[in-house]
Amino acid sequence: MSAVETLQVQLAERSYPITFGSGLGTQVAEAVSAARSQGRRLVVVTDDNVRAAAGALFAGPLAGLPTYTVPAGEGSKTLGVFAGACEFLARERIDRGGVLVAVGGGVVGDLGGFLAAAYLRGIDFWQIPTTLLAMVDSAVGGKTGVNLEAGKNLVGAFHQPRSVTCDMALLRTLPAREFAAGMAEVIKYGLLADAALFTDLERAPMTSPDDPRLAGIVRRCCAIKATVVQADERETASSGGRALLNLGHTFAHAIEAVAGYGQYLHGEAVGVGLVAAARLSELLGLVPAADVARVRRVVEAHTLPVRLRAPLATDALVEAMKRDKKVKHGRLRFVVLERLGTAVTRDEVDPALAVQIWKEMGAS
Amino acid sequence: MSAVETLQVQLAERSYPITFGSGLGTQVAEAVSAARSQGRRLVVVTDDNVRAAAGALFAGPLAGLPTYTVPAGEGSKTLGVFAGACEFLARERIDRGGVLVAVGGGVVGDLGGFLAAAYLRGIDFWQIPTTLLAMVDSAVGGKTGVNLEAGKNLVGAFHQPRSVTCDMALLRTLPAREFAAGMAEVIKYGLLADAALFTDLERAPMTSPDDPRLAGIVRRCCAIKATVVQADERETASSGGRALLNLGHTFAHAIEAVAGYGQYLHGEAVGVGLVAAARLSELLGLVPAADVARVRRVVEAHTLPVRLRAPLATDALVEAMKRDKKVKHGRLRFVVLERLGTAVTRDEVDPALAVQIWKEMGAS
Repeated sequence: MSAVETLQVQLAERSYPITFGSGLGTQVAEAVSAARSQGRRLVVVTDDNVRAAAGALFAGPLAGLPTYTVPAGEGSKTLGVFAGACEFLARERIDRGGVLVAVGGGVVGDLGGFLAAAYLRGIDFWQIPTTLLAMVDSAVGGKTGVNLEAGKNLVGAFHQPRSVTCDMALLRTLPAREFAAGMAEVIKYGLLADAALFTDLERAPMTSPDDPRLAGIVRRCCAIKATVVQADERETASSGGRALLNLGHTFAHAIEAVAGYGQYLHGEAVGVGLVAAARLSELLGLVPAADVARVRRVVEAHTLPVRLRAPLATDALVEAMKRDKKVKHGRLRFVVLERLGTAVTRDEVDPALAVQIWKEMGAS
Repeated sequence: MSAVETLQVQLAERSYPITFGSGLGTQVAEAVSAARSQGRRLVVVTDDNVRAAAGALFAGPLAGLPTYTVPAGEGSKTLGVFAGACEFLARERIDRGGVLVAVGGGVVGDLGGFLAAAYLRGIDFWQIPTTLLAMVDSAVGGKTGVNLEAGKNLVGAFHQPRSVTCDMALLRTLPAREFAAGMAEVIKYGLLADAALFTDLERAPMTSPDDPRLAGIVRRCCAIKATVVQADERETASSGGRALLNLGHTFAHAIEAVAGYGQYLHGEAVGVGLVAAARLSELLGLVPAADVARVRRVVEAHTLPVRLRAPLATDALVEAMKRDKKVKHGRLRFVVLERLGTAVTRDEVDPALAVQIWKEMGAS
């Protein structure tokens, strides 16, 4: 995809375009210039890794804009960092007409989005995701937030961006481990809504940003996410709906919480979580063992873990699941596969099944 | 009003009732019991003064509920206190079906509301205001938030309560100074939308919670606020709309910011602000000097200040106004009186007028 393509997320007055291409600096520069000519004040939020890696963006289209740079990593997704950034916005006199530009991966997008949601009770924000994971997942859909000691993403807001710019050129400098982590979410989309995508990745794994399929696949994932979000923006559907995007994530969040953030990249935990969710689907009589094996092989082919790297305590993992946001009135709810390419929600799952799966995945 | 009366705020799926009466413990107990029987977990947020003053509520209807008690006063409306309270909710395993009950004045309501808005990206909350100011103003309308070093209410969310319970019995223990501060907002409603209410207060000031007019007047103020909020929930109207509720507040917020929080009660700063807004209306040719004098006399009759108690720097006051949230693209916007009983917004006010008024109000 050498041309610039656009996908519109349809959410009435909160609709916005996602732009896909390679080398989108000109588009960003034009948007910045248009906003400034309307007297709007812009502010950039990013992290130190991205600032170094995406030098051309900061020296070019974003040059001269006040920029709040947080340390790279999940450790910046806290209320403490959030508070410091709020004071920065106030010092820079960002008013209700202001624009916050989040340039980075999931941490920067989630933090920046919550800042834009809460500062002055809401200002506009633009997402410029710089990781594969952010492009296909966190930058689209309006979920924003930070972590608590008690768990991930426990504080936040639904706040849709005004635009998302997916520039494949930014993925060239992404470490291989980060690229693989993003692929976990891509595999997830195949499993939950696009069997052909899953088969495509099964035939030939995508392990490099130079893969010519990349832009098309990113766009396909965003289209799936947009469709799901359009139907259930605030995850209020009693079954199915936006919760389906959490395939593998109840397991993944437990791993991240118990292992300590930073031990597993989010996508790596999702890799394990997808295998666990497939196995749960088998135990519930939904898919054959052969399908679980296929999921495991595809996850593994993308250099992602398919079981715990080191034993974690089963009790702690199950406890962490019960603290997951998806829980309502204390009952365990999972997203499982009805078949490869179709996910469903399942309430009141017997906790004994979760215990069995954790043991199989290497928990102690 | 010995009976229990209800007013419905009409906001589609976010509609909610405001209940008015004296001695509403039974209603609260029934609501708590109904929620618990549905397996919902409740948590109370309050402050130490209220916990002491409203002992019957905590020993009765709210007994046994986990309670997060913050120090009384504006100093608790910070992101630091917010973060501590979030961790408390997580420790208490409040899930998406949870209910946060805010029992207190404006600080507790604003903090509790923002907690309910952001924790798990939004849970239900109930307001039980314990001050006159909270009953007629902050508990109704869904504005929630905390302060930054840079200014008041700069971080927050729009999040409507599921119910508001206005129990006049709770006002009996309110210090006289707090009661008077609440009256500033009552006078404001008269000035902006209800000339008869203003005249009524002019004829006989309401200086005690034993005044038989109290419940009826609280209800009248809530009805005005509900009407305004229904028409412009998120304050996006280009003129008029929800911004009208800020009559006197651009001046008041500047006083609070420059004097340091705690020097003036919010309502006291609003008292000065109402006189300043009336004077600005006169300078803009909208109302005669006699009306400004009437506003000053009514504010004064409610034992509220009508000018700065001690000189504050004019430059600092004007700077603080420019940082006000209502500012967009850096332009000063005020709410002024078209006549007593009708307010309008006015953009692009000459800053020289603000300077003149501040000097008249005792600024240095």
